[in-house]
Amino acid sequence: MAIFGPSRKEFEVGEVVFLAQEKPLKLDNGFELKNFSIAYQTYGNLNADKSNAILICHALTGDQYVASKNPVTEKDGWWNFLIGKNKPIDTEKFFVICSNVLGGCMGSEGPKQNGVKFPAITIHDMVRAQNLLVEHFGIKKLHAVIGGSAGGMQALSWSVLYPQKVNLVIPLATSYRHSPQNIAFHEVGRQAIISDPNWCEGDYLREGKYPSSGLAVARMTAHITYLSENALQRKFGRELKDNGKFEVENYLHHQGNRFVERFDPNSYLYITRAVDHFDLEKDFNGNLAEAFAEFGKKSDGKFCVISFSDDWLFPPSESRKLTQALVRSGVRVSSVTIDIKAGHDSFLVESDELKNVISGFLLEPKT
Amino acid sequence: MAIFGPSRKEFEVGEVVFLAQEKPLKLDNGFELKNFSIAYQTYGNLNADKSNAILICHALTGDQYVASKNPVTEKDGWWNFLIGKNKPIDTEKFFVICSNVLGGCMGSEGPKQNGVKFPAITIHDMVRAQNLLVEHFGIKKLHAVIGGSAGGMQALSWSVLYPQKVNLVIPLATSYRHSPQNIAFHEVGRQAIISDPNWCEGDYLREGKYPSSGLAVARMTAHITYLSENALQRKFGRELKDNGKFEVENYLHHQGNRFVERFDPNSYLYITRAVDHFDLEKDFNGNLAEAFAEFGKKSDGKFCVISFSDDWLFPPSESRKLTQALVRSGVRVSSVTIDIKAGHDSFLVESDELKNVISGFLLEPKT
Repeated sequence: MAIFGPSRKEFEVGEVVFLAQEKPLKLDNGFELKNFSIAYQTYGNLNADKSNAILICHALTGDQYVASKNPVTEKDGWWNFLIGKNKPIDTEKFFVICSNVLGGCMGSEGPKQNGVKFPAITIHDMVRAQNLLVEHFGIKKLHAVIGGSAGGMQALSWSVLYPQKVNLVIPLATSYRHSPQNIAFHEVGRQAIISDPNWCEGDYLREGKYPSSGLAVARMTAHITYLSENALQRKFGRELKDNGKFEVENYLHHQGNRFVERFDPNSYLYITRAVDHFDLEKDFNGNLAEAFAEFGKKSDGKFCVISFSDDWLFPPSESRKLTQALVRSGVRVSSVTIDIKAGHDSFLVESDELKNVISGFLLEPKT
Repeated sequence: MAIFGPSRKEFEVGEVVFLAQEKPLKLDNGFELKNFSIAYQTYGNLNADKSNAILICHALTGDQYVASKNPVTEKDGWWNFLIGKNKPIDTEKFFVICSNVLGGCMGSEGPKQNGVKFPAITIHDMVRAQNLLVEHFGIKKLHAVIGGSAGGMQALSWSVLYPQKVNLVIPLATSYRHSPQNIAFHEVGRQAIISDPNWCEGDYLREGKYPSSGLAVARMTAHITYLSENALQRKFGRELKDNGKFEVENYLHHQGNRFVERFDPNSYLYITRAVDHFDLEKDFNGNLAEAFAEFGKKSDGKFCVISFSDDWLFPPSESRKLTQALVRSGVRVSSVTIDIKAGHDSFLVESDELKNVISGFLLEPKT
């Protein structure tokens, strides 16, 4: 009866890895991480004064293959339409870096290889690890940090932790904190994973097992939140297929199955937890504007906050609150709501609107 | 690590049971069901001309204990605030019947005692079984049929299958068909159950096992859809509790745990499937108004369609489509959207608005 495969492809780890061994990384929970790996990809060339670097931060289950073929899925880069020669993020002009997040499962250090004894991490910790990679390149200041969803949280965190090191910040389809409803959906996914007996208290790799069913159910739940009711209606309606299932059910099964082939259950537990706990308002004692005060003072940079009209995971109203806080803290900010109607996943969907907003903002004169 | 109990309370079956043995019930899938039980409760007294009966149809995981203590949970009836002496549905005046749906697990025939060899059922089949119970009482015409959510689908089905047998129809927080998004959430729940190894291909009772985790995850997913983002924010916010969990997570665990003590996994599979397949528009070849044409002709009755402002499972827009179809088919219809802000569960929450609408509609002069 099980519809989710019992095994998975063995992941290829990212072939380009930075080993952070110069200094330990102190995590938010107090643990000091030493000699850890950060897998990454780069596109384009760093210029002589190292001023043309753009850091892309990937979302929850994304990876460093933002503009090149993913070796596990063999799919094109997830932002191929944005990044490349003569594209909105032009690799003839910019040096683009994208690293697998700390805690991820595509070559960066995390609970995949270390099991659940790996310390809990936060979005800020991911950014601190990215900062070591940026320092490794000798980059003093990033031209831009760009990210959607959990990647948008990282972009925001960059502006808070390293305000003097970022020029332009582009958070897309994100928020300064996860809503209780979003936490609830994540928790359903986590419970699905840890109550799968093949999770083996997190020791599935050593036990030679794999909690496919739990991970697939987690992905199915999450995937519903990535689309919108309208998108589901438009894509699938109530069409019944030959196997007696509604098309939307077959689609979710497919999503669940593809996911277990490429993602790690422990990474899913760790990264969802990091996203849930991200809360810039709480970090600054309830005053969100305070979070960006240093950026307002130390940086001559600016923000472009992008939201999507029918994203119900991070609705435009959340972006408005973020924009208001940025304005209150004296940060220059543009705010755009794009009307694509593909739900939260709109930021991953090629559209002229998105391309024009990104290229326009990146190329604006600095003034 | 499992947070959901491995066992459950043995269910008390409903103590009042009607055994349908006079004639077989032909189900939508062609199967003929014989000698099957329908557990029910009644409140108040049937008058001499049997004209004062009101049928209450319960929702997906509801039961017949609409206005009396549930013997399994020992909680008060789920609509105690609506039904009783001097209440909006006044048992001094009306004879109230509520039966456990066909396929349910509170004493009516279903996959709990029969396993997955029990035939697939539809909302219409549930209503056909209720009709046998109503005939058993010698009732020619119900004064009213009232139900919320999946119970509202049953109320709609009554007006379609037995238009001459219903006077007033009150569907609450429901629709004439389940949306793709709702189907998707149900499917996540079903996959959680059937991929729990303790489900044993549906044979858990005989195997002495119980898929608690799967059923709990199903309930947690569903429960998120029963509330609204605002309700979750208001109730829980992002408060962290002593166990390091967000309050909303603890709440969902509690909901999952309570549910596995009272509900049957196979019943959950069967009833969610029935709800997903309910589609009056499809039944009438895309013309929803046609579904109510007979009611418009044969009945002198009328409808009161009730929706709730922040119900995102069955939003007010769905009720508007239903109301428009009723108007097109010449049915007299009142339509009310109540502003309670408790999400889909608003129909289960005591409010003056709901009480006033129900009592007003039931007592209106007939013409």
